[in-house]
Amino acid sequence: MSDLDAQFAFLNEADRLKSVLRATTLCDGSRRENSGEHSWHLALYALVLEGQAGPGVDINRVIKMLLLHDLVEIDVGDVPIHSANGQAHASAETQAAEQRAANRIFGLLPEGQATTFRALWDEFEAAETPDALFAKSLDRVQPVMANLQSGGGTWVTYDVTYDQLEARVGVKIAKGAPGVWEWVKGKARVWFG
Amino acid sequence: MSDLDAQFAFLNEADRLKSVLRATTLCDGSRRENSGEHSWHLALYALVLEGQAGPGVDINRVIKMLLLHDLVEIDVGDVPIHSANGQAHASAETQAAEQRAANRIFGLLPEGQATTFRALWDEFEAAETPDALFAKSLDRVQPVMANLQSGGGTWVTYDVTYDQLEARVGVKIAKGAPGVWEWVKGKARVWFG
Repeated sequence: MSDLDAQFAFLNEADRLKSVLRATTLCDGSRRENSGEHSWHLALYALVLEGQAGPGVDINRVIKMLLLHDLVEIDVGDVPIHSANGQAHASAETQAAEQRAANRIFGLLPEGQATTFRALWDEFEAAETPDALFAKSLDRVQPVMANLQSGGGTWVTYDVTYDQLEARVGVKIAKGAPGVWEWVKGKARVWFG
Repeated sequence: MSDLDAQFAFLNEADRLKSVLRATTLCDGSRRENSGEHSWHLALYALVLEGQAGPGVDINRVIKMLLLHDLVEIDVGDVPIHSANGQAHASAETQAAEQRAANRIFGLLPEGQATTFRALWDEFEAAETPDALFAKSLDRVQPVMANLQSGGGTWVTYDVTYDQLEARVGVKIAKGAPGVWEWVKGKARVWFG
């Protein structure tokens, strides 16, 4: 098997992320967003909001992380942040399933690339480095913006309060992109009334 | 208006790209692809196929170009490459409409960023620099792969011959990513028989 055989097997498999539906809708509320287009939007968020990143953030690494961050959902599906009263997202079961998915999906690539991509995904998941913290913040901001645009979205679906939003989402946005959370908080407070 | 006001106005507007449908379907043929998820897939192509780029290509710039390259379709829609017997895509009318769209959409951003992003898009459109040529090649490869996976796709819709594929698509792929076209050509030849 040539490198290109392996790389196109991976790229064809990645196509399936376009069929993984998230709880969040598009900004116009017309349908649920899929994880492929979400990943594009997030990478664009990184490009546009680079100036909000903390010191030491390499925006090119952040963009790469965001392009890869949801691929495991091809096997596991999207676990909405506000589902199961905010508990399902970080469950040990979900995390173990995501590890298996990462082994399988990144494992389609030629060995060196598989290792590099897997390390980037592990770094994102661990949420400790400046790059990962900024990437995670953006991943939390984008659905907030969609909910604000679409008239509440998953906040209505899951009966979310402002305090829950602050605890589940705001704290994490503030960690990697404090200026963004300051701005978004103002909009969210108006919506929650 | 603060920078963040302008940046989020742009990011919210960009969401509409997820509702622009392309002629190409997903690899499983289940539905037409939208230009948002297409842009994600292309950026992933760049990340994976970096080793196929010619000398002097900066993959980070290529990825940025690909994240931005289709935004004008929010106003203009996607013009399929094989439509109107391969003539519609590069028409003066389409190009003028895309210029107006670029003015409006990039114009939503703070001034410095608007200029930078617009320059990247102009560079992509001009298809002269190594970065733009590689980006354009990927933009031509991805639908070929989708057609191969889905059983013919737009080749069937538009009654495309292998010679037309080579002339409209292959030549451009070969210009920026000759090794990729060599590989893909082999697969396409089998399909066209």
